[in-house]
Amino acid sequence: MTSLANTYPSQVDHAAHSSGALRISLRSAIIGVSGYAGGELARLLLRHPRFSESVPHFFSRSVEKQSEHEVTLSDLHPNLSANEQPDHAVLPFDWQRIDDAGIELMFLATPHEQSRNLVPDALARGIRVIDLSGAWRLKDAANRTVYRLTDSDPQRAAELQTHAVYGSPELHRQEIAEAQLVANPGCYATSIILALAPLVRSGLVDLQRGVICDSKSGVSGAGKAPTSKTHFMYAADNLSAYSVFGHRHTGELLEQLNLRSDQIQFTPHLLPIPRGILSTIYLRFIERVESSTIESILREFYRESPMVRIRKSPQLPQIQHIAGTNYCDIGFELGKDGRTLVLVSCLDNLLKGAAGQAVQNMNLMYGWDETEGLL
Amino acid sequence: MTSLANTYPSQVDHAAHSSGALRISLRSAIIGVSGYAGGELARLLLRHPRFSESVPHFFSRSVEKQSEHEVTLSDLHPNLSANEQPDHAVLPFDWQRIDDAGIELMFLATPHEQSRNLVPDALARGIRVIDLSGAWRLKDAANRTVYRLTDSDPQRAAELQTHAVYGSPELHRQEIAEAQLVANPGCYATSIILALAPLVRSGLVDLQRGVICDSKSGVSGAGKAPTSKTHFMYAADNLSAYSVFGHRHTGELLEQLNLRSDQIQFTPHLLPIPRGILSTIYLRFIERVESSTIESILREFYRESPMVRIRKSPQLPQIQHIAGTNYCDIGFELGKDGRTLVLVSCLDNLLKGAAGQAVQNMNLMYGWDETEGLL
Amino acid sequence: MTSLANTYPSQVDHAAHSSGALRISLRSAIIGVSGYAGGELARLLLRHPRFSESVPHFFSRSVEKQSEHEVTLSDLHPNLSANEQPDHAVLPFDWQRIDDAGIELMFLATPHEQSRNLVPDALARGIRVIDLSGAWRLKDAANRTVYRLTDSDPQRAAELQTHAVYGSPELHRQEIAEAQLVANPGCYATSIILALAPLVRSGLVDLQRGVICDSKSGVSGAGKAPTSKTHFMYAADNLSAYSVFGHRHTGELLEQLNLRSDQIQFTPHLLPIPRGILSTIYLRFIERVESSTIESILREFYRESPMVRIRKSPQLPQIQHIAGTNYCDIGFELGKDGRTLVLVSCLDNLLKGAAGQAVQNMNLMYGWDETEGLL
Amino acid sequence: MTSLANTYPSQVDHAAHSSGALRISLRSAIIGVSGYAGGELARLLLRHPRFSESVPHFFSRSVEKQSEHEVTLSDLHPNLSANEQPDHAVLPFDWQRIDDAGIELMFLATPHEQSRNLVPDALARGIRVIDLSGAWRLKDAANRTVYRLTDSDPQRAAELQTHAVYGSPELHRQEIAEAQLVANPGCYATSIILALAPLVRSGLVDLQRGVICDSKSGVSGAGKAPTSKTHFMYAADNLSAYSVFGHRHTGELLEQLNLRSDQIQFTPHLLPIPRGILSTIYLRFIERVESSTIESILREFYRESPMVRIRKSPQLPQIQHIAGTNYCDIGFELGKDGRTLVLVSCLDNLLKGAAGQAVQNMNLMYGWDETEGLL
Repeated sequence: MTSLANTYPSQVDHAAHSSGALRISLRSAIIGVSGYAGGELARLLLRHPRFSESVPHFFSRSVEKQSEHEVTLSDLHPNLSANEQPDHAVLPFDWQRIDDAGIELMFLATPHEQSRNLVPDALARGIRVIDLSGAWRLKDAANRTVYRLTDSDPQRAAELQTHAVYGSPELHRQEIAEAQLVANPGCYATSIILALAPLVRSGLVDLQRGVICDSKSGVSGAGKAPTSKTHFMYAADNLSAYSVFGHRHTGELLEQLNLRSDQIQFTPHLLPIPRGILSTIYLRFIERVESSTIESILREFYRESPMVRIRKSPQLPQIQHIAGTNYCDIGFELGKDGRTLVLVSCLDNLLKGAAGQAVQNMNLMYGWDETEGLL
Repeated sequence: MTSLANTYPSQVDHAAHSSGALRISLRSAIIGVSGYAGGELARLLLRHPRFSESVPHFFSRSVEKQSEHEVTLSDLHPNLSANEQPDHAVLPFDWQRIDDAGIELMFLATPHEQSRNLVPDALARGIRVIDLSGAWRLKDAANRTVYRLTDSDPQRAAELQTHAVYGSPELHRQEIAEAQLVANPGCYATSIILALAPLVRSGLVDLQRGVICDSKSGVSGAGKAPTSKTHFMYAADNLSAYSVFGHRHTGELLEQLNLRSDQIQFTPHLLPIPRGILSTIYLRFIERVESSTIESILREFYRESPMVRIRKSPQLPQIQHIAGTNYCDIGFELGKDGRTLVLVSCLDNLLKGAAGQAVQNMNLMYGWDETEGLL
Repeated sequence: MTSLANTYPSQVDHAAHSSGALRISLRSAIIGVSGYAGGELARLLLRHPRFSESVPHFFSRSVEKQSEHEVTLSDLHPNLSANEQPDHAVLPFDWQRIDDAGIELMFLATPHEQSRNLVPDALARGIRVIDLSGAWRLKDAANRTVYRLTDSDPQRAAELQTHAVYGSPELHRQEIAEAQLVANPGCYATSIILALAPLVRSGLVDLQRGVICDSKSGVSGAGKAPTSKTHFMYAADNLSAYSVFGHRHTGELLEQLNLRSDQIQFTPHLLPIPRGILSTIYLRFIERVESSTIESILREFYRESPMVRIRKSPQLPQIQHIAGTNYCDIGFELGKDGRTLVLVSCLDNLLKGAAGQAVQNMNLMYGWDETEGLL
Repeated sequence: MTSLANTYPSQVDHAAHSSGALRISLRSAIIGVSGYAGGELARLLLRHPRFSESVPHFFSRSVEKQSEHEVTLSDLHPNLSANEQPDHAVLPFDWQRIDDAGIELMFLATPHEQSRNLVPDALARGIRVIDLSGAWRLKDAANRTVYRLTDSDPQRAAELQTHAVYGSPELHRQEIAEAQLVANPGCYATSIILALAPLVRSGLVDLQRGVICDSKSGVSGAGKAPTSKTHFMYAADNLSAYSVFGHRHTGELLEQLNLRSDQIQFTPHLLPIPRGILSTIYLRFIERVESSTIESILREFYRESPMVRIRKSPQLPQIQHIAGTNYCDIGFELGKDGRTLVLVSCLDNLLKGAAGQAVQNMNLMYGWDETEGLL
């Protein structure tokens, strides 16, 4: 990674870190601020202690379609308006504007294809990127085909892909700190990977038998576009399974947990709630284990990870416990046979599953406390 | 109305009526079956005792856009599928198909403009029509401007308009029985008119002071088109007022209650539930009255109206009491001053506020029991 | 079963059946009408064509605590009130009242212990019983221990238990027709058993590997008693797993599917909706099968079962498709390996999972069409 | 107020204020931390910048009933748990514990009667109190009768009542800063008073005609006790009016807006959402006014009030805009007659309507920025 490191020095964070000053002037931008993840990112950064004197720049494609008058953040997200403060302009995205503003860090809350295209140009400018789309998460091109991405310069894209860091702070804290490109994980994938990683790595799980992940997500995960499936009348008072055997986050599970596709199965469901994911995970151990052993493995794995909370069995996490927070809560119950395990993992898909995890990654990239602006 | 009566004889119903036979063969069609009201209408007719041997014909514009294979009712409304029965085809609307099938009764669950256009042609064919849109509800052209309707033959449309019957069985039972064109009332309007009509007609209400109607409706009232306002994320965990001073149902209130626009005020709100309307209505009496007098007025007015239920004060109706039924429930509480009244009226916007009331109107038009297929 | 048959002849149904008359005068009673299942049962029977001239008698323990004035069905279930009809009294349960009324059929919507106690006395009187509790569902006393039941006459209870018929019409249609005591199945159990029975019986399922059932239910399944877990603030915007490895319906799965406890695993979840169950079921086939084979097995199994609807893969049932109906909808998707199957099963826990199935059983017991009063 | 001021000097705040230090060591306690308002208060204080080194003490009556092991904040509110930090004990309330801890500020999130009893003892100890109950809000004893309070020392209670400050920062900022006892306003009352105060004080409103307030609140307003009305099955998919003509918050409207009971009418409704209040308010002006005049009056009134946001007509606030925030949003629409006004006011009943407003009051009492810990 030396060549990239040379190309994109990251003085900002080290300076900020060494000085210990709360107020820095990181010039950042959110691209795609009109969506749910973009809106949450704006909300988090506007109240982040490091940003008290450096408001991010906001961009959105949806702005171009709007009327002549200036579009503001309050227009897109009325909850973010403030009475006495000047409102924040949202502009159509344009590299000239990025260059003029001297942006150092870009959050991409853009569609997959758009992220795939923006990243090479951003990195070429020495801008660090946290991409919330699925465009750069998968190392294996075969896994990536589900996104139907096309690269204008495939060779360079392939090289950048090898340097992209999967933005799971609990698994890749060090690489994230130094990364130029962080691929923020999928919401479902985060809930499953954080629950399974400690156990799969322990070698205790019977992978031959396979792991089954039954996940349920609130509607914000489906995005802001009005469709027949995001209509209130479709989602309310309902539950439906979808993308059985074919959800895009499956590749993340395989790569991050180092599993073959016949070793893990993932079925998402659409819950009639605005936000939150609960994954119920079924696995078998190779041999009998104690409940206390499982708890030790989980606690040890997350000893330095303040954003993962382990519940004491048989307590199990629920969506309400984590809604509006950046926590991932994990609990479990072990069968009387000592081999059958039910794991339950919960997170807020817009926070730990998207904007919150992005801020956590930013904190790591700039040497700040991992939880800053997130508690 | 003699000329119209001559033109469109309605032998079918009289025959059915006199014979008393449960099974008739009324040839009916639902135009616009893909929407919520159309779907409910299909559900009600398919289980209506008079339709056990004469399934309606189903039409929808949305079908034209679909793929080559035949579209069925189950495709549009999976809840209406049946295992062993043949499914029902849904076809693109076409007068030739209507003529070939010898349709005698058409339900229009179509947009306002479309209903405005279809009605003259249907009546010219001798087909009786129950129109669920707002196109034919308003006698006063000034009130009708909110619908921005255009007529190809304005003179004929104006004449038909005078013969159109406002389809409120409780107010116009006789005219409906003989009508060729029934304009099925608006959902909000029904909830308000049924609560107010007895009291306004009693002459006790201080109309000078004005009546305030604060109404709240479930999301199905906003229609099936996916829009930013019918998105689950917009409607869920929310409440919002809209169309303040400008809702289209206001004209129905004025005409049916015989009020001036400065005597009644109506504000709708969007509730985070699939279906149901609750209207809270505030008025003052000219002089002190007793609670028992109000109850008598209401009960007397609806003595022959099985689909209106009067609650005993201080019991008040709630949306759950009427969801899934064709009832309109009315309750009230009188202030200690004997002059200030709070009326509460509830109905299911898709049933008593749309498809159920349409079936009730059909029952009247064909001389059947008003509640048939509705309990 | 000869002795029982002698003791409790069932002339009523045969007479009704042979005459073909729609109107019969079956003297029935619902015990426990104040709960959700009891209320739905009352609603279904009041509009059942066979009951147009013989309203059931209603009983409830909750009535005893009420004030001096007579309690009516409308007091307990305001949705069931009617304007012009006389309301129905709800009385405290009392064998004398049952005897005086000459009750022939009792529906027990009572707690498990109460059902366990009432059944022997009812049968001794020659009254046929449909019990909606879990008291009589399980043949194996070991499975039954979870209900902590005590019998005043254990020997007689054990004998009656052997004659009790598990009220799944699709599995035990013949026995139900002749039964004196029908144990109406659990809601979760029904959703899982109906999906699995055809496949398990086919011998194709790898039972060694085990079947995993991840079920999600609306809140009505938790009963009407206000508790911390039925509080709106607990259930709304939430999802939680509960009774992992220990739900009472597990015994029904084992007995009806003829499985060992290490062959099936069942985890229920509480959904933030009023009603409906969706079960996602994971299994493996012993060897590769075709999707069309699975569909054939399911369709063949339910060929004569009008209340089970098989979806065409990859269409899957959703809770909205069955809410308010007595259908159980079953769909599936087969993995590319031809061995991994995801089955999805949906039903309304208060109808096919309780009151609707009870009526279906009654229809069978009296020789009426299985779907009467249920479509 | 001199005598009280002598008795209860408030050095703490002035010291903190003058030093400008972020970290202070205010010794505070929350009594009644198990409820919804108590839980939100704990959440807000635990992340309040002034409390980074002085965690509040937590008390709850519910703890006494619990098992022998120590009850923690996480047990009561699992969302507030943290992995690596020590959890916070919740103890049964006891004056000895208050004295030992040297508590300087008490938040009472207790039932009305309990608050009425605790306050005199707290003030006698020199402890400042913010009471979230209704016990001390009403100056007029006649208005207070709805709470059925009894005082052990009525004379002293009456004296304390005169010194109690109604904790609406926007109306009583100065008095709150110096108060020993702040009576935190009711949630409905706050939403109505903040919308009406500027207009009523302007003298433009036709009070003769009366003001009508139609309010709708989420279920958390009904408290944590499981009752038939807080059952999910009662509240979900429903809307109901309650306490028509008799809600306890009416007295606050009369006193704070200086109105007679025949000049304002207030009807609350129960919304099927966890949190948030929307009040739709109907009034008439004495003479024709301009929309811009109304906006100016509102903006001017709240010029120094950062927690009230005025929407630009015809934009109206919605519950989603304020859920999870301490803002009260106000918008309006003026009829074409220039005299009929519809005001819409929204707030989060647990924040601006309870715990958030309590923190805002605390900030004022200790000379901190009004919004600290609330943005």
